[in-house]
Amino acid sequence: RAILRAAAELLLEHGLNAISMDAVAERAGTSKATIYRWWDSKELLALDALFGEWDLPPTRRQDTGSLTGDLRALIRPWVRQLTGQPYGRVVAGLVTRAQSDPVFAEEYRARLVEPRRERARAIFARAIERGEVPEDTDLEIAVDLLYGPLYHRLLHGHAPLTDRFARSVVDHVVTAVSRPRG
Amino acid sequence: RAILRAAAELLLEHGLNAISMDAVAERAGTSKATIYRWWDSKELLALDALFGEWDLPPTRRQDTGSLTGDLRALIRPWVRQLTGQPYGRVVAGLVTRAQSDPVFAEEYRARLVEPRRERARAIFARAIERGEVPEDTDLEIAVDLLYGPLYHRLLHGHAPLTDRFARSVVDHVVTAVSRPRG
Repeated sequence: RAILRAAAELLLEHGLNAISMDAVAERAGTSKATIYRWWDSKELLALDALFGEWDLPPTRRQDTGSLTGDLRALIRPWVRQLTGQPYGRVVAGLVTRAQSDPVFAEEYRARLVEPRRERARAIFARAIERGEVPEDTDLEIAVDLLYGPLYHRLLHGHAPLTDRFARSVVDHVVTAVSRPRG
Repeated sequence: RAILRAAAELLLEHGLNAISMDAVAERAGTSKATIYRWWDSKELLALDALFGEWDLPPTRRQDTGSLTGDLRALIRPWVRQLTGQPYGRVVAGLVTRAQSDPVFAEEYRARLVEPRRERARAIFARAIERGEVPEDTDLEIAVDLLYGPLYHRLLHGHAPLTDRFARSVVDHVVTAVSRPRG
């Protein structure tokens, strides 16, 4: 736990490229050997550290009774966290590493991308049950429409990632899936 | 021109981290000194190389008569190019570099992000003139909804960036902006 905390702090302070196992060991008050017993690389340690920081609330707690409410409840805390600290740098470092290392890419998606997608998918599925959106809604597209613009601002920085922006994205996505297209 | 071509080839073959000014000079059949006369760093050279590769067609040529048609005409060639070669790696490298270098970030946005956004903005503005979408449409949100999901798949690789996906994103975005929200 101390190792994960130390890794998360160092990641936010310096970014993935600038941290080392030595620095994490020193910050956590442990040895590099101990860290290597659990993690093969600083990248894998970074994934676990971020996974811990981005803990997701249980699905049930997000049942607000509407698709808009559910999506806002899912997105708001995450956006607050992303913008409160320099996570853009950390995520960009991981995304770059993932491009040249397929095994790491798999781990990255499994730890940081897929759990959030799964939550969103469950929310859209509930909206289908409620009759809010059509049964043939493409959930993968819906999830990409939701997260894509948020990651876009986080990584490209062309405009601020704010609560207001996140709310507007949710509203647009709800509109996009709430009536038949064609 | 030979330098830009060589840089683009090497970027696609090896990614930003793995190329050097030496390699570009050798491939282009010129000297490093000549390259440095025009570009201060391999990152700035990479921006110009990609800018050349991603040449945008003139705005007028994209007037197909409808928002859906215009957006498809804008997006299709770009998506084809992105998926035909390993651009994900190149863009990820640039995005990472942008996180720790504000001057480079500004250049990156000005060369590679803003020109595409400006084209999309012009297309949405034309749709407002045609009466296809409401006058109070938030163009910045619309542009993020369009590009966000494309960059998301390009960089995260959780699902393939295909023509079909791009068409579906366009259809959803058109739906999202075509009626009042609330």
